[in-house]
Amino acid sequence: MEKTIGELASHVGGKVFGDENVIISGVNGIVEAVKGDITFVANPKYMEFLTKTKASAIIVSPEIQFEEKPLIKVDNPYLAFAEILTLMTGTERNLFGISDGAHVHPDAKVDPVTAIYPLAYVGKGAEVKEGSVIYPGGYLGDGAVVGRDSTLYPNVTIMDRCIIGDRVIIHSGTVIGSDGFGFAHEGNKHVKIPQVGIVRIDDDVEIGSNCSIDRAAMGKTWIQRGVIMDNLIQIGHNVVVEEGSILIAQVGISGSSKIGKNVILSGQAGLVGHIKIGDGAMITAKAGISKDVRPGEVISGFPGMPHRKWLKTMGAVSKLPEMRKELERLKKEVDKLKGLVKTKDK
Amino acid sequence: MEKTIGELASHVGGKVFGDENVIISGVNGIVEAVKGDITFVANPKYMEFLTKTKASAIIVSPEIQFEEKPLIKVDNPYLAFAEILTLMTGTERNLFGISDGAHVHPDAKVDPVTAIYPLAYVGKGAEVKEGSVIYPGGYLGDGAVVGRDSTLYPNVTIMDRCIIGDRVIIHSGTVIGSDGFGFAHEGNKHVKIPQVGIVRIDDDVEIGSNCSIDRAAMGKTWIQRGVIMDNLIQIGHNVVVEEGSILIAQVGISGSSKIGKNVILSGQAGLVGHIKIGDGAMITAKAGISKDVRPGEVISGFPGMPHRKWLKTMGAVSKLPEMRKELERLKKEVDKLKGLVKTKDK
Amino acid sequence: MEKTIGELASHVGGKVFGDENVIISGVNGIVEAVKGDITFVANPKYMEFLTKTKASAIIVSPEIQFEEKPLIKVDNPYLAFAEILTLMTGTERNLFGISDGAHVHPDAKVDPVTAIYPLAYVGKGAEVKEGSVIYPGGYLGDGAVVGRDSTLYPNVTIMDRCIIGDRVIIHSGTVIGSDGFGFAHEGNKHVKIPQVGIVRIDDDVEIGSNCSIDRAAMGKTWIQRGVIMDNLIQIGHNVVVEEGSILIAQVGISGSSKIGKNVILSGQAGLVGHIKIGDGAMITAKAGISKDVRPGEVISGFPGMPHRKWLKTMGAVSKLPEMRKELERLKKEVDKLKGLVKTKDK
Repeated sequence: MEKTIGELASHVGGKVFGDENVIISGVNGIVEAVKGDITFVANPKYMEFLTKTKASAIIVSPEIQFEEKPLIKVDNPYLAFAEILTLMTGTERNLFGISDGAHVHPDAKVDPVTAIYPLAYVGKGAEVKEGSVIYPGGYLGDGAVVGRDSTLYPNVTIMDRCIIGDRVIIHSGTVIGSDGFGFAHEGNKHVKIPQVGIVRIDDDVEIGSNCSIDRAAMGKTWIQRGVIMDNLIQIGHNVVVEEGSILIAQVGISGSSKIGKNVILSGQAGLVGHIKIGDGAMITAKAGISKDVRPGEVISGFPGMPHRKWLKTMGAVSKLPEMRKELERLKKEVDKLKGLVKTKDK
Repeated sequence: MEKTIGELASHVGGKVFGDENVIISGVNGIVEAVKGDITFVANPKYMEFLTKTKASAIIVSPEIQFEEKPLIKVDNPYLAFAEILTLMTGTERNLFGISDGAHVHPDAKVDPVTAIYPLAYVGKGAEVKEGSVIYPGGYLGDGAVVGRDSTLYPNVTIMDRCIIGDRVIIHSGTVIGSDGFGFAHEGNKHVKIPQVGIVRIDDDVEIGSNCSIDRAAMGKTWIQRGVIMDNLIQIGHNVVVEEGSILIAQVGISGSSKIGKNVILSGQAGLVGHIKIGDGAMITAKAGISKDVRPGEVISGFPGMPHRKWLKTMGAVSKLPEMRKELERLKKEVDKLKGLVKTKDK
Repeated sequence: MEKTIGELASHVGGKVFGDENVIISGVNGIVEAVKGDITFVANPKYMEFLTKTKASAIIVSPEIQFEEKPLIKVDNPYLAFAEILTLMTGTERNLFGISDGAHVHPDAKVDPVTAIYPLAYVGKGAEVKEGSVIYPGGYLGDGAVVGRDSTLYPNVTIMDRCIIGDRVIIHSGTVIGSDGFGFAHEGNKHVKIPQVGIVRIDDDVEIGSNCSIDRAAMGKTWIQRGVIMDNLIQIGHNVVVEEGSILIAQVGISGSSKIGKNVILSGQAGLVGHIKIGDGAMITAKAGISKDVRPGEVISGFPGMPHRKWLKTMGAVSKLPEMRKELERLKKEVDKLKGLVKTKDK
């Protein structure tokens, strides 16, 4: 696709400085860019590349002065870059309907303007709305629903009755609606509690590859609008993740915990069940959280503590061998002093 | 399905207090329950809900007194609830045999009273016994065996010659029998050791979604009767997990370790290879275990230590910044004292 | 397969001590071996089994003296064992071409000497070279390439345009080329950055089951020659893992980090993005790494520190409760001494 700088600027609501008629045919990072590409500088540490880049145009923030090349000035260069990249690389979805090699139950309700690839399976009473795509190996269980313009990449499993919203993206290997881990105990024997709830994924959610989101025991496990999830994440039954939260790879959340809005859970963090993480809180990488977290708090470590305290504590931990020696030395000093003081007592 | 309270009580060996002829048509949590539902109270902290719930009957423990609603008294209300839920929500399995869209090798041995869904694959010499179900995307390698009344959910992979017992449930995306991680080294080059063993899963095991259980180098990786495993768990080659043990999500066990009976491995815990965890031991969340653990021990942290000691140690860790300051202060005090004592010496 | 000891010795470049005409028909561990088997002793702690094993021949290192059984002496017995095991258990690959039940796009380029199993999918413009095998549930996206003699086990997903080298093994459930986790932010809204790069897997790489390797934002995520990866590993976009490195199960590497040659990342370790791990470094289990690591360093813990320091520090941590008591005691002693010294002052 080719666009002029002027067209791109108007697409992102930016202002052109320089020749707005230059033709742009590609989008690239500032180091990799070649003639004909547009690139961006959002991070001041890349400013030095402005003079070096071979790009034909650069998206920058308003305060940047640079006259050698055409610029598009916007408040959020990275966002504008994302929008231009989407515009330039986006391909029309080929919505060919139900392919011959797909297995669609006669009682399923599949909109004709969809793409159900060969080797996909759509169960009894399941529904796929307009604009959605199910790749090979995708499984949609009985009564499950996929909303409009959603994408299930290859080998995604959506179990019975789970509900996927509009514009949802689910990457390969992810499982939505496996049974929650619920057992009653009869002595040492584990008796399975049927998991009769569902998973509901709201609109505009993106879920990475090889995640596991368990169905509720009763009611629903619920991922709310605009949540983004990385890969290999575990979500237990009846968990709720509220709007806009960000879950990084390999996080695990145990059953019935509630994650507020715009929370960040960093990589490999783990949360016990039945706790509440307040809106806007952040849990840092590898933290282990076993208590409620208040809105806006930043918690680190295991057991979890406020991030600043954790930094101080870890600073002290790294001095522990020295502290131990120092304590030993002081003990001897004090013993000696005691001896001296006693001696004089006599 | 509809049952009277009397019928339900006799199903779980409980005693009715109140009208045993009331019709029950649903099962639900105490908060969510509506008229016609049965619910339960096992946890004393939910006692206050007894008067509030809209349920038509409640399963309780014998000591509870409450006359406003029909009760079923049993020793283990949660277990009785599980049994009633299973009774009321259980659906007949539709054992339709081998579907047209399934790929079953002519030399496979599949019982006619099974369900092999479209897009499932059963390899040469593989066997599926009466009552078992293989969902779409299920793969059963050459010579693999699935026992009676077992369920392989969509996109489960069972590699060649692995053996799955009776009444086993395996959730989507789980891989049984990928190669163990075994390499000899020729300088910096890694030379693969063929992994010629198998995985054996005994009866009544349940395995969550997206788990990886590697086949043995030689002999077998072995998950014994009644073990329950959550999601995203890693089991290395030649590991043995004995009867009744519980493995929570994201646990990792390295090659050749032996987990005793009724052990609990909590979420995100990791175990090195070639160790033994004694019967009834518990490893708490995120612990890192590099040595044998004795039967019944509770081990926490990394490096692992007895849980009580870990609690004390973590308590001290959280005081470290203060300890560090205190140590600094004491050092000065002692120096000052030394000065004073010396001065007087003169 | 049957071979004489002489034939096996010449296969591994070893020297026979004893009767080189004995027929070997199996390969096994020293404890499990029966008559007709060959076994090996590489680890001195198994020397006592030399007299006990029922094996008909033993591969040993040159310094071992043992006259009761035929020996093959080699410098690296474990390596020789691997080579003999491969020789004895290796089966011819059945390269039957494209099976009827496979879905291969008419514009794909599949060598006739391959095996494309039923239920495998090969997209438009994708290429599979001579000798490679794609098992059921395997997905090869548009324009993706699989080199020579590679194996994609069941339910492996290779997304569009990703490139897999020669003699690569990818175990079940692994996803190559899911989108990297890249978002721009417009207030609290996450705007997806299209991930237009690829994943490139070089020759002789082995990747375990249920791993996730994200495609680059731009350019490539790159796993170089001879890398071996265990199960359930997360690799973020634009990560580079250089030749010969070893990644153990459940490791996570965030975006754009560079792992040098012959690095070892142990189980459940986690690395932040944009760092560099030097050649030959080792990161021990469960470590959390947030800074560059120099070549050859061994780093442990979180925050990461040199392994020796970590050992000392953890030793001190385990003494913390005692240290805390000791500090309290010293404080009192010093107060008392101050009192005594003051008293005498008067």
